[in-house]
Amino acid sequence: VIDDVKRAAEPDLWVEENQGEILRVRYRVARRLHATRSDVQRVDVVETTGFGRMLLNDGTIMLSERDERIYHEMIVHVPMFVGPPVARVLVIGGGDGGTVREVLRHPSVSYCKLVEIDAEVVEACRRHLPQTAAALDDPRVEISIEDGVSYVAETTERYDLVIVDSGDPVGPAVPLFGAEFYRNVERILSDEGIVVSQAESPFYEASTQIELVKVLGALFRRVRIYNYSNLTYPGGLWSFSFAGKGDRCPVGDFDAARVERSRMSFHYYSPAVHRAAFALPAFQLEQLGPHLTPLKAEGVFR
Amino acid sequence: VIDDVKRAAEPDLWVEENQGEILRVRYRVARRLHATRSDVQRVDVVETTGFGRMLLNDGTIMLSERDERIYHEMIVHVPMFVGPPVARVLVIGGGDGGTVREVLRHPSVSYCKLVEIDAEVVEACRRHLPQTAAALDDPRVEISIEDGVSYVAETTERYDLVIVDSGDPVGPAVPLFGAEFYRNVERILSDEGIVVSQAESPFYEASTQIELVKVLGALFRRVRIYNYSNLTYPGGLWSFSFAGKGDRCPVGDFDAARVERSRMSFHYYSPAVHRAAFALPAFQLEQLGPHLTPLKAEGVFR
Repeated sequence: VIDDVKRAAEPDLWVEENQGEILRVRYRVARRLHATRSDVQRVDVVETTGFGRMLLNDGTIMLSERDERIYHEMIVHVPMFVGPPVARVLVIGGGDGGTVREVLRHPSVSYCKLVEIDAEVVEACRRHLPQTAAALDDPRVEISIEDGVSYVAETTERYDLVIVDSGDPVGPAVPLFGAEFYRNVERILSDEGIVVSQAESPFYEASTQIELVKVLGALFRRVRIYNYSNLTYPGGLWSFSFAGKGDRCPVGDFDAARVERSRMSFHYYSPAVHRAAFALPAFQLEQLGPHLTPLKAEGVFR
Repeated sequence: VIDDVKRAAEPDLWVEENQGEILRVRYRVARRLHATRSDVQRVDVVETTGFGRMLLNDGTIMLSERDERIYHEMIVHVPMFVGPPVARVLVIGGGDGGTVREVLRHPSVSYCKLVEIDAEVVEACRRHLPQTAAALDDPRVEISIEDGVSYVAETTERYDLVIVDSGDPVGPAVPLFGAEFYRNVERILSDEGIVVSQAESPFYEASTQIELVKVLGALFRRVRIYNYSNLTYPGGLWSFSFAGKGDRCPVGDFDAARVERSRMSFHYYSPAVHRAAFALPAFQLEQLGPHLTPLKAEGVFR
């Protein structure tokens, strides 16, 4: 929530995020760039002093320019480099465009559909976050402003990769963590298709992560969680889920040489980071272990 | 800094930490347990609502009960499980006892010397943080209240492992990041000895980390950085340095089977986490790469 904190000698503007009632994180704001309220939520863009521009939906930080590449590289390139090149990609949420930008770096992609519930997010990012939104003008991209839950229930299209680039499971994002949504995702995926989803914090949202893995486990042949370090999300360690219809293992079947042949450069991702992301801390593996498919590389990488 | 934040409807007590002037993190405090000022620094222990008890030196968070095992497991078990069993360990800083506690779990350890500059830290932790301080009563432990820089300059003892469990490079901890200190550490290490040090954040303290790696590179045969996720340090992703007098590679020569034979259980550490910790994000590898010794496992784990 944007909040003017008055201090005796130092009247400042900060973005403040609460984690439960135990923790508050504040980022210093240089100026407000955008503040609107859509049918769905409040949308803000601010210029911070330390993290570039920041997008907030209903007061929750979605991204900062300083660290958004970490999130977007890890949600995209991990699934894109497991298995053969992908042609058709569906992104649900992600109206900022960062996920689409990373998808489009892969020349195999012929079509990328973005289904974002809130036109105001796309509009705010087009105006104030060109670092992520510029990719939305690519001719391979089709943007549809609608509820991703309804879209996957109704579409007859097929995709090789679905990326659920959602916020926390509150408000309109709640069904994006549910079984009905993922039954439809499974239906619209090609035979070797993969779905990757924003899977919250293993520290703060362990039960959400466990529930998501259970939902995926009932529908997909291979389910794993992988981690990345986000600078501006509380606790730092955050997760994505990986679920595949086929038997392809995101570590054991990962072909690092294909990353090198791509000649792509990255801010955070690398073949070593790809594999390491699946090495979960002991407490997280204990929480999730019974619901995860064993890696084909357990012998090497346990 | 402990700070009473007065709000209209909600007068609260919080611990607040500043990261430069760009970020503030606040932890809600249930009650203050300890607040003293020694010759060296201010020492506080508080009970938080979400993270157990917390130790602060000069207002900077040293540890919370909720996540201290992550830090202490990673600073200890990574070097302890590289190479043959270790007998003699020196811990510099770490007056809370958490590092010593993890060291003592290894039955090969016959002697652990703790050199802490501030008796008040040991005293405050003995009274209020039994989770970490209880280990300090073990008969294999010798506590010496003195400056670690002077100790390594003057001692004629030899150690198989030195752990530099220091705070940020401010005040008395500045020389712990310098070349003179590490020349003495190298001198008191046995032939295959290892030194591991708290190496700051790759996001916020990149230049400190680069300087430390350069210092180590001029003195040791093998130098690497490894990462872990700290819940209560800003940015989440933090680092330790690993430097060895011998040629032992912390990934290529790591014997995962020895961890399993130990039958030790961990909150965060595992053989997979051990290896994964050395897979640095691309931006960090670019910052540090020229100063790091290549891993023997580059082919598998690049």
